[in-house]
Amino acid sequence: MEALDYLAEERRKAEFDVEEMKIAWAGSRQAYEISDRVSRLVASDPVFRKDNRTMLSRKDLFKDTLKKAAHAWKRIIELRLSEEEASKLRFFVDQPVFTDLHWGMFIPAIKGSGTEEQKAKWLPLAYKMQIIGCYAQTELGHGSNVQGLETTATFDPHTDEFVIHSPTLTSSKWWPGGLGKVSTHAVVYARLITDGQDNGVHGFIVQLRSLDDHLPLPGITVGDIGMKFGSGAYNSMDNGVLRFDHVRIPRDQMLMGVSQVTREGKFLQSDVPRQLVYGTMVYVRQKIVADASCALSRAVCIATRYSAVRRQFGSHNGGPETQVIDYKTQQNRLFPLLASAYAFRFVGEWLKWLYTDVTQRLQANDFSTLPEVHACTAGLKSITTSATADAIEECRKLCGGHGYLSSSGLPELFAVYIPACTYEGDNVVLLLQVGRFLMKTVSQLGSGKKPVGTIAYMGRAEHLLQCRSEVQRAEDWLKPQVIVEAFEARAARMAVACSKNINKFPKQEDGFAELSADLAEAAVAHCQLIVVSKFIEKLQQDIPGKGVKRQLEILCSVYALSLLHKHLGDFVASGCITPEQGALANEQLRLLYSQVRPNAIALVDAFNYTDHYLGSILGRYDGNVYPKLYEEAWKDPLNETVVPDGYHEYVRPILKQHIRVARL
Amino acid sequence: MEALDYLAEERRKAEFDVEEMKIAWAGSRQAYEISDRVSRLVASDPVFRKDNRTMLSRKDLFKDTLKKAAHAWKRIIELRLSEEEASKLRFFVDQPVFTDLHWGMFIPAIKGSGTEEQKAKWLPLAYKMQIIGCYAQTELGHGSNVQGLETTATFDPHTDEFVIHSPTLTSSKWWPGGLGKVSTHAVVYARLITDGQDNGVHGFIVQLRSLDDHLPLPGITVGDIGMKFGSGAYNSMDNGVLRFDHVRIPRDQMLMGVSQVTREGKFLQSDVPRQLVYGTMVYVRQKIVADASCALSRAVCIATRYSAVRRQFGSHNGGPETQVIDYKTQQNRLFPLLASAYAFRFVGEWLKWLYTDVTQRLQANDFSTLPEVHACTAGLKSITTSATADAIEECRKLCGGHGYLSSSGLPELFAVYIPACTYEGDNVVLLLQVGRFLMKTVSQLGSGKKPVGTIAYMGRAEHLLQCRSEVQRAEDWLKPQVIVEAFEARAARMAVACSKNINKFPKQEDGFAELSADLAEAAVAHCQLIVVSKFIEKLQQDIPGKGVKRQLEILCSVYALSLLHKHLGDFVASGCITPEQGALANEQLRLLYSQVRPNAIALVDAFNYTDHYLGSILGRYDGNVYPKLYEEAWKDPLNETVVPDGYHEYVRPILKQHIRVARL
Repeated sequence: MEALDYLAEERRKAEFDVEEMKIAWAGSRQAYEISDRVSRLVASDPVFRKDNRTMLSRKDLFKDTLKKAAHAWKRIIELRLSEEEASKLRFFVDQPVFTDLHWGMFIPAIKGSGTEEQKAKWLPLAYKMQIIGCYAQTELGHGSNVQGLETTATFDPHTDEFVIHSPTLTSSKWWPGGLGKVSTHAVVYARLITDGQDNGVHGFIVQLRSLDDHLPLPGITVGDIGMKFGSGAYNSMDNGVLRFDHVRIPRDQMLMGVSQVTREGKFLQSDVPRQLVYGTMVYVRQKIVADASCALSRAVCIATRYSAVRRQFGSHNGGPETQVIDYKTQQNRLFPLLASAYAFRFVGEWLKWLYTDVTQRLQANDFSTLPEVHACTAGLKSITTSATADAIEECRKLCGGHGYLSSSGLPELFAVYIPACTYEGDNVVLLLQVGRFLMKTVSQLGSGKKPVGTIAYMGRAEHLLQCRSEVQRAEDWLKPQVIVEAFEARAARMAVACSKNINKFPKQEDGFAELSADLAEAAVAHCQLIVVSKFIEKLQQDIPGKGVKRQLEILCSVYALSLLHKHLGDFVASGCITPEQGALANEQLRLLYSQVRPNAIALVDAFNYTDHYLGSILGRYDGNVYPKLYEEAWKDPLNETVVPDGYHEYVRPILKQHIRVARL
Repeated sequence: MEALDYLAEERRKAEFDVEEMKIAWAGSRQAYEISDRVSRLVASDPVFRKDNRTMLSRKDLFKDTLKKAAHAWKRIIELRLSEEEASKLRFFVDQPVFTDLHWGMFIPAIKGSGTEEQKAKWLPLAYKMQIIGCYAQTELGHGSNVQGLETTATFDPHTDEFVIHSPTLTSSKWWPGGLGKVSTHAVVYARLITDGQDNGVHGFIVQLRSLDDHLPLPGITVGDIGMKFGSGAYNSMDNGVLRFDHVRIPRDQMLMGVSQVTREGKFLQSDVPRQLVYGTMVYVRQKIVADASCALSRAVCIATRYSAVRRQFGSHNGGPETQVIDYKTQQNRLFPLLASAYAFRFVGEWLKWLYTDVTQRLQANDFSTLPEVHACTAGLKSITTSATADAIEECRKLCGGHGYLSSSGLPELFAVYIPACTYEGDNVVLLLQVGRFLMKTVSQLGSGKKPVGTIAYMGRAEHLLQCRSEVQRAEDWLKPQVIVEAFEARAARMAVACSKNINKFPKQEDGFAELSADLAEAAVAHCQLIVVSKFIEKLQQDIPGKGVKRQLEILCSVYALSLLHKHLGDFVASGCITPEQGALANEQLRLLYSQVRPNAIALVDAFNYTDHYLGSILGRYDGNVYPKLYEEAWKDPLNETVVPDGYHEYVRPILKQHIRVARL
């Protein structure tokens, strides 16, 4: 079959080495090669087909998902894949399934909170999947506030057991993925009660279903919580509900790596520093940021390619119409998202480094950077996932009407992505944590305590509160130090202003509550600065490949200046820049769009996504969109018959006036 | 059954007469009564149940939709409903179906473009539904640019027929609702070719399917275009694809109300002013704005009620946690949307007046206000639908994790609403039309041509370009004239600045193209001013009921000040207000939130939505959310069996290691 590339002309326009950019995007040649190999492996395997996914009923979709999970496990073993490769394979299969929680939450929970004996007992079973586990924390009435959980685990010294119980309806476990239909075990979070005393929330390993016939064990009520956003998407996952009626488990199934309950029922608070849990948290959040760059780049890839295929208006003398990617309004919406994809990729890469750094410090009992790391990872999780969710929907709109078709891939991508704004910390709650950290930093200025890491710039608050941007011409905005200073000044001024306003309240807590929206805005300013700074730092490194660094410099400027335009009020109202300088930034941004334009297709090719992974007719590599859209339409179940089911009962009687039209 | 109202305490807090507010919302007592009666009628009819809609397969959903349409038609006839009542009934059935297009597009197209004879022949058939019609305009390759359509209608003088033909794949009709499986007829838009001459795009009545056996007529290929965004939602509609292979229709099936083709094949351009079509356009757009206020208020109603039910954090001494509606971050996101719902409602009401005004003028051959009306309706369609789409998703996020469940109603509401941003004019394309109108108005300043209607303020451009806001204290922002002047000054300054920048380009068209993003922003500023002004004008009328006007005044201020905060950069950079005045606006906004808070539940009760129409467990009138969520979960098809289909094939072999774990 001769493959015609309708975007070949676009690809010829590129002014940089796409292969080298692929490596820059992947992070290393090795990462690129693994990713490339595994994604092709998945794409070529018919079991992993997903083009009919949105048409399946819930039950068929779920069965298809179980099939894929089993096949993935089989392939992982047959091919003796490494842990990294196995995780990539699951990633490219691209269908939420119980194994995500088994590997991503159940095993890490035991690793992180179990004793050595517990790990020795449970991990081998889990690694071999002789048990399948999930992570049962949130309840019907309790999400963000973990300390408010109601499920109880009461120690019974007579039998040396815990009694796990759901005392109220709102204490029903609700949402855990893999719980509804598959998991045999769960790490259950419950209030530990010893001798009538509430010792707070702890984790317990609880078997839910028989390993023989898969039926729920006595006292356990478990099921699926029902349909979720979209078709396909997260409906492949059995998010579950779980109630306990006095279920007994042996004492040694409380995860006792940190705290213990003795045989006598005495609760022992461990002297292991609680900060150790932060290591896992940084790990999880860096993964979420990396995932954000994946989802965003995927949407941007679809919208960019289709914007080069789609033509509308502007035909002269019967010639072809203008490619919509040539319209400034399209560029103004699309290119900042393209730039964001790269920005999030690089800040995610930096977070990986931060994770190793934190791990080393924790091992050396150095907790000094933890508050900063906590705030920085919370904030980056929040702003990258929020921006990505919005961006996917914007990309859908950029595809016009056809973006609304399931076959565009964008509806399902949106539906499957948006939970990231809620899980592992609601994005607004996280911003408020960052805000509190900023207020603490401001209050300690001048105390001799020097801000470190991503908040180090606050050490220069005095300068930042009064500096004026020196921009005089549009091109001055291309200087990294000009950008960084403007973003630092904005973040510092917003934090300080917020702090002053809070201090006006007699009770500081009232100030925090009343000004929480301002706090969240200050937090956003701080986090955007981090992303901008890390992008700029990346560009100070050696980046091989003809034109690669140049393209990234352009994207970095697009990212920063589009943020500046979007948040112009922050910058101008706080006096960091003048309105005229704001206008110059916008002028420069427009010029940059013209530089991105010829490279746009190559810049999304550099993500190296297979058509299988993209899952979008609009985003096809070869740009052969319309014939494929047309072909795809006929596959809908409604087209199985020419005359639809229901015609004879419900349409024909109207046409033949068997329904009497009394009024006319 | 004793109905316990968990929100009774919230309702007692209200400081205004909710019944009177219901009438203010509905527009009149009569409108309220019809709406109330018909919505209850639909809610109490088991055929119109929709709580299982998102679980149905495409075919079952489609059949269910046909059933509802037939039942609706039957009820309309049995109850001898008026046209207004019938349309309300279809509205409250709340499921997209072919009759939407039959009544909303097919009949109006014939009414608007047919001759008297054509109307006499076709309308009675359509009114009695002896034929079912759709509106076939957009094509696979052509959306916004109607003049680019490729389908041809070539006159054959030998047979006195038109030959309708699809010359290319991209000329396939694509998207028309009701086309895929049901319509027997369509108004097809095609290029009229007479004697080798292309006379542009015209409408033709074409029969698609046999009235006997419903099979497509010879030469016609027709089907459904496949799944669309979400589950349920627009998948109940048979959006269709249609190709013609030299299909012949009699000459008198070209809609000849405006232009004609004679028996000899001569094309006659009519002397009927083309402007007459604007009447219909204003009608359609006012309806879209009214629909925006419905969709938005529905989402806001759900999020507001659930924010009062949901509690999280802030528990003291084991007491209940804080209602999330009491958090300022929640209020800061939710209350501006509540205010927007009312703002859009009232601007929609004003558009109804505008429609009658325009109709009267057109009848009197007065076309003077048309450009302004065109711009104003285009812009309002754009900003209200964009804001509503974003707001529905924001309301979903405001419901936390549970908003992601289909049973929250919000995912489907989002999916079914978002096409409004694209149909009847892509929102960005429309903003650019407004932008061009603004530029024209600016260029004519001082020419003696006085701007009228919603653009009249530009007649005071000289003042607006140099005025300074007099706000000195936060409460100064409560004065309507202060608000209006700030919004007028912002809109005028942005338009004038844009015009100046465009004039710097040697070719004006290049300036328009290059600065289109700025033009769109100026258009938004103009349109937001219209919404704010019309809200304020509404408040100058007599509004009965204790406290009703007072509440609306608060919401009006919330709407305006939240926009001001969101677009602070526009206001400050253009010098309309100082940064300090901006900070005062924000301070006032926070104070207003505290005034909205006790009235929030009553303000959404005033929308008078039945639980059936809301279709949301989170938004239940009685606030009895958790038991109902729990109940609902068990209805999912996955819960039909305890052990899921697929367990034996795909899960058990893993657990029992029938898949050999070679690596371990």
